[in-house]
Amino acid sequence: MNKVVNAPTPPYYAVIAPAELADDIRGYPELAARLVALAKTQPGFLGIESGFQKGFALAVSYWASLESIQSWRVNAHHMLAKEKGKTLWFTKYVTRIAKVERVY
Amino acid sequence: MNKVVNAPTPPYYAVIAPAELADDIRGYPELAARLVALAKTQPGFLGIESGFQKGFALAVSYWASLESIQSWRVNAHHMLAKEKGKTLWFTKYVTRIAKVERVY
Repeated sequence: MNKVVNAPTPPYYAVIAPAELADDIRGYPELAARLVALAKTQPGFLGIESGFQKGFALAVSYWASLESIQSWRVNAHHMLAKEKGKTLWFTKYVTRIAKVERVY
Repeated sequence: MNKVVNAPTPPYYAVIAPAELADDIRGYPELAARLVALAKTQPGFLGIESGFQKGFALAVSYWASLESIQSWRVNAHHMLAKEKGKTLWFTKYVTRIAKVERVY
């Protein structure tokens, strides 16, 4: 997971997902890893970068199109995992959809 | 630093900056902190989110416009810091400029 993603030439899309975490995040790293493994099987998935600080997680996944993001968004496993995240581990989070226009 | 950025309603811009790090990153956290303090004084800066893993750093900064990103890009302190990063600490990195179109 800890590699710079080798994405194709822009444009492509980024899903930027920051989350403030509760003190007790038992179970979160394992679920996140399973979710990444599942994302990798999705059409249009280009890669993911992520990092942590105390109480904070940041993930950026890359996708070929808005359609591929939408399909992943409504994936049942993904939805359940997000629900669990919101209930158990995330005290604040947003999802930002962004179009990568340029890379240098 | 470890908070979800409270950005305005889209559109706005994100600078996604992942970097693979060398083993010895002495000096890097201090320089990064100084750079964030400086970025906060720049016109159009909306906030920054960042995280780490062993050997990997991910930062996403948010900006009001492409012009504000360009001004920051050519800021002398910023350029020097990036140069130092490339020389001393980053084994691989890219900078992705993305337009945040939607937040949910």
